[in-house]
Amino acid sequence: MRFFSDNAAAAHPRVIDAIAASNRVSTAYDGDDYSARLDRAFSDVFETEVRALWVTTGTAANCLALAAMCPPFGAILCHKDAHIENDEAGAPGFFSGGAKLMLVDGPGAKVTPDALAAACDRVRKDVHQVQPAALSITNATEYGLAYSVAEVGALGEVARSRSLAFHMDGARFANAIVSTGASPADVTWRAGVEALSFGFVKNGGLNAEALVLFNSKLADEIAVRRKRAGHLLSKGRMLAAQILAMLDGDLWLDNARAANAAAQSLAQAAPGRLVYPVEANELFLKVSAEEAAALRGQGFDFYDWGVGEIRLVTSWDQQGAEVDRLATAIAAL
Amino acid sequence: MRFFSDNAAAAHPRVIDAIAASNRVSTAYDGDDYSARLDRAFSDVFETEVRALWVTTGTAANCLALAAMCPPFGAILCHKDAHIENDEAGAPGFFSGGAKLMLVDGPGAKVTPDALAAACDRVRKDVHQVQPAALSITNATEYGLAYSVAEVGALGEVARSRSLAFHMDGARFANAIVSTGASPADVTWRAGVEALSFGFVKNGGLNAEALVLFNSKLADEIAVRRKRAGHLLSKGRMLAAQILAMLDGDLWLDNARAANAAAQSLAQAAPGRLVYPVEANELFLKVSAEEAAALRGQGFDFYDWGVGEIRLVTSWDQQGAEVDRLATAIAAL
Amino acid sequence: MRFFSDNAAAAHPRVIDAIAASNRVSTAYDGDDYSARLDRAFSDVFETEVRALWVTTGTAANCLALAAMCPPFGAILCHKDAHIENDEAGAPGFFSGGAKLMLVDGPGAKVTPDALAAACDRVRKDVHQVQPAALSITNATEYGLAYSVAEVGALGEVARSRSLAFHMDGARFANAIVSTGASPADVTWRAGVEALSFGFVKNGGLNAEALVLFNSKLADEIAVRRKRAGHLLSKGRMLAAQILAMLDGDLWLDNARAANAAAQSLAQAAPGRLVYPVEANELFLKVSAEEAAALRGQGFDFYDWGVGEIRLVTSWDQQGAEVDRLATAIAAL
Amino acid sequence: MRFFSDNAAAAHPRVIDAIAASNRVSTAYDGDDYSARLDRAFSDVFETEVRALWVTTGTAANCLALAAMCPPFGAILCHKDAHIENDEAGAPGFFSGGAKLMLVDGPGAKVTPDALAAACDRVRKDVHQVQPAALSITNATEYGLAYSVAEVGALGEVARSRSLAFHMDGARFANAIVSTGASPADVTWRAGVEALSFGFVKNGGLNAEALVLFNSKLADEIAVRRKRAGHLLSKGRMLAAQILAMLDGDLWLDNARAANAAAQSLAQAAPGRLVYPVEANELFLKVSAEEAAALRGQGFDFYDWGVGEIRLVTSWDQQGAEVDRLATAIAAL
Repeated sequence: MRFFSDNAAAAHPRVIDAIAASNRVSTAYDGDDYSARLDRAFSDVFETEVRALWVTTGTAANCLALAAMCPPFGAILCHKDAHIENDEAGAPGFFSGGAKLMLVDGPGAKVTPDALAAACDRVRKDVHQVQPAALSITNATEYGLAYSVAEVGALGEVARSRSLAFHMDGARFANAIVSTGASPADVTWRAGVEALSFGFVKNGGLNAEALVLFNSKLADEIAVRRKRAGHLLSKGRMLAAQILAMLDGDLWLDNARAANAAAQSLAQAAPGRLVYPVEANELFLKVSAEEAAALRGQGFDFYDWGVGEIRLVTSWDQQGAEVDRLATAIAAL
Repeated sequence: MRFFSDNAAAAHPRVIDAIAASNRVSTAYDGDDYSARLDRAFSDVFETEVRALWVTTGTAANCLALAAMCPPFGAILCHKDAHIENDEAGAPGFFSGGAKLMLVDGPGAKVTPDALAAACDRVRKDVHQVQPAALSITNATEYGLAYSVAEVGALGEVARSRSLAFHMDGARFANAIVSTGASPADVTWRAGVEALSFGFVKNGGLNAEALVLFNSKLADEIAVRRKRAGHLLSKGRMLAAQILAMLDGDLWLDNARAANAAAQSLAQAAPGRLVYPVEANELFLKVSAEEAAALRGQGFDFYDWGVGEIRLVTSWDQQGAEVDRLATAIAAL
Repeated sequence: MRFFSDNAAAAHPRVIDAIAASNRVSTAYDGDDYSARLDRAFSDVFETEVRALWVTTGTAANCLALAAMCPPFGAILCHKDAHIENDEAGAPGFFSGGAKLMLVDGPGAKVTPDALAAACDRVRKDVHQVQPAALSITNATEYGLAYSVAEVGALGEVARSRSLAFHMDGARFANAIVSTGASPADVTWRAGVEALSFGFVKNGGLNAEALVLFNSKLADEIAVRRKRAGHLLSKGRMLAAQILAMLDGDLWLDNARAANAAAQSLAQAAPGRLVYPVEANELFLKVSAEEAAALRGQGFDFYDWGVGEIRLVTSWDQQGAEVDRLATAIAAL
Repeated sequence: MRFFSDNAAAAHPRVIDAIAASNRVSTAYDGDDYSARLDRAFSDVFETEVRALWVTTGTAANCLALAAMCPPFGAILCHKDAHIENDEAGAPGFFSGGAKLMLVDGPGAKVTPDALAAACDRVRKDVHQVQPAALSITNATEYGLAYSVAEVGALGEVARSRSLAFHMDGARFANAIVSTGASPADVTWRAGVEALSFGFVKNGGLNAEALVLFNSKLADEIAVRRKRAGHLLSKGRMLAAQILAMLDGDLWLDNARAANAAAQSLAQAAPGRLVYPVEANELFLKVSAEEAAALRGQGFDFYDWGVGEIRLVTSWDQQGAEVDRLATAIAAL
């Protein structure tokens, strides 16, 4: 029973169907009708005119955006536990041509305005030190916390005052939206975010992510960078078709709701063990090595997270019975 | 009627089925059983132990390989009409960290041993000039010619004697194999090729290409570079499943046979117009602007190729009636 | 007797004196009074407000400028015989993060407006091909020709109309100015040039070149890139002091006049052998292998330049007797 | 009175003389007799065969070495206060093509074997995390501490066992050698160091540093990288001549002795204020803002170092009277 990550979940049947249905469009790259509909579809979601580009991975979405938002000689401020710092194999440095990740700390992998400002203040304004140029936050965070509109807005204020471009890694954006009830517009561009990596793969997509650009001036450059990075698929129609299927009828929200609900079920079984509040589809629990072994013995698959902690991730396709069994098993520890 | 490129052809139904069938494997990245079978499957095709990695585009396959085969301060020798020079948006420079493409000329986009040796000889052996480090050829070439085993072997000899790594861009490898009847082993590693970008997308795949490494020492580094370039898909199983479906029962050869046969039909209708022999699934025809307009007027879609020439590309899914109609139309010009 | 290159000439005694005289300034990097005077000094030479940065090599000057003038995904148009293409070890690719050199041909290493426009026109306006972003010309050229004001202006027009940044590699700028009598302003910014690598090392400097920025918006970024490339010397005062010594009393023009005059003396001895007109301090002569050997036998040191040609370069410090002896020897061949 | 940095000190008169004396050598780049003598001269200092290359800055020396010692996708372990992390404008990322600095902590900017091993252990051995590839330490450290032979050896052991290349930034190597009395060989290659940035500029040189390669296999690649980075000066003879002058008669040790002695004089005046032991030519003192202002009021120039601390750096050319006045002033606070 898979609780180690949502990135291995199945694609939703409607996504698979959309791929099959788009198979006979004889137009290459992103010249097809599906791709052409993305800008409109995301503009509707975000209540403003946006540009949207498909890519196949969150790493590509994040780093293509960051490369366009930060010069090679600049720094990208992010949390020390950020995915771009820990799990992208140095991709930000590769895509940007050597930009530096400048790390800030804070509970739950959240960047706070004070920590951000302090990090900027630590840099001397001279040519010897790499100057901050961009901010990247993850929403929901790597510890499953969702930023409130006010929190993002406060960061946007600091970014503006420091002339930092502002990127959001939304690998689990859907889970954050469902959790807070914030409108997609409020928690992004209205709060100062200029580019969003909008994740679908963990949430029922197969291999399509969207890079949504509120600062549309970034789009043309990123389209070039996408090709140059080998990320312009010749049958890109099937990436666009997936995304449209996920947006259609708010499937993306339904799926996130399912995953979040599963996480809540588990959270309720483990009130004393929670390391962080459960605001999306990830749980971090205080569980001893013996207890972890016991859970694994019952067929549950998950990651240890340091000493005495485990991480559980629920998915849109998680079956209720599995979740119930795990909840019961945890409660019984 | 699409004759502008095979890159917009449909995916084969068995490929679509394979994607759907692999949807419930709960293992991320390339940890799944499908991915695990690639090494074996390609080792069988090539009659030797190889390592094989999936990627989503030919550009990624080419440039990940070249980045591992050429240092940032080295040069990659290729034909001036090579895809890596003309159609990858500078990706070789990006992936390699600034390596130089050193161009050689020759009819039909073929690199000859003499041209290769001469290009190497033009370089002074000092630190002021970029030194040759790798050779990349395209088979079938950008003008639809297939290298013979002897031709590749002769290039392999030069490469060996000059200490050049040797890469083959096989975006249309299947068409070349069908055309020459050469064994995959003879025209690659037995002739000195160390890495092959084995194309499937133009030949019935959806979005999976294979990077086949005869020099298996390259594999671990390329796996890291793949992740770092954002090309490690979390549901990579569906790329592996596609490739396995293409190899299964030699679907890749059947599809290439169909595309090549369609090209031969067209060639027979235009004997006096052929710019190059038709050895794969591309035709370059001498056709005036008026004639081209007339063909387009009948619903045929293709590219002009300089002044007074057009390019036609046939695909595995080209319907016989379409091909016949085009053949008739050309003959009637 | 050294005729192989001016880059090995002595530094002028006033330059050496200036280094010694600046030794006791206790300010690091470019914070000293000498460095502070550069902007003013070059603004006087060029009759407009410029920013000027010292560096130690022409390669650094060229490539720092080009990196700021061309994005990593763009192309720099230059002559196929340009120093940046042939003799900088791929430095443009390194500094720019992978930009491509797009080569144009033309006699005497001169770029012509037609060749420039044609090269731009060959590029499809799509994301698959690297788009032209900058132009770099060398004045005097690698074959010792000097651009007229009108020639540079015509290139500037094309550059403007194509949105190309415009850089001039002036490793032998002094020789070109002396040769044409053009004003430094006319042949640079008034003709559209935005950045000039102003060479001193071949002309009596020891190890200081100036990067003169007519587009002053480039200056701050280049200052950062200079540090990042390890080119911000802590005792930069001695670079600035050299340059000021070269500008003082027009020593740079006097030295170039001496070198050009030596070249003219040689040219007059070899009227039938000249491959190009002699407009600066380089001569390319048709000389057989036997004749070249005979000259070398008399103690003259120079490079062969392909088959049946040799290159001679005169220097500011060339002694009249040496030049006379060589002129006599050539005439006697 | 300059106590803010030794990097602004004068060049030693013998260095200036050496530059003037080498002015008439008509050989370019590093083809001259001075450059040719460097390998031998450093082989004598280090009691083994080494290769030595001149460069003009410590940043260039450090980053050329690190680029050859760490792949673009690897990590360089260093102290969080290391010069390469804080004061080189991201040059390690630029030269290496995007390698990551992985920071370790420890008092006095010293890397300890335990901290090094722990940092390595924190990295998962998979393609998602950047893998450690090199270690760089600074000796003397950025806080003026000198590594003992045993300390370097212990780090060398960890490096060997973890397959890390091992680089030493010796911007103040001379001061460290004088301080510990260790032999240059013992504290470098015999302890596992493969490349040393051997600093001269802070110690009486004008603008020449040496990159000393105990692992001579690195030399040819670094020579290419040096040219490619614009660091191959055409009159490199004058860099070599400087270095030879510094080595001649152990001038480098004499100068360091003078600077260290000046630091000891100051240390004795401020026993209760020392933040770190004074082992080279840097002092970090607890001094209030008012006290700092008082010292500045007397004409002493130095940097604040965080709140309530100042940094003083002595130089080879510091006059005894200046040092005595500062010592008196500190004692009188």
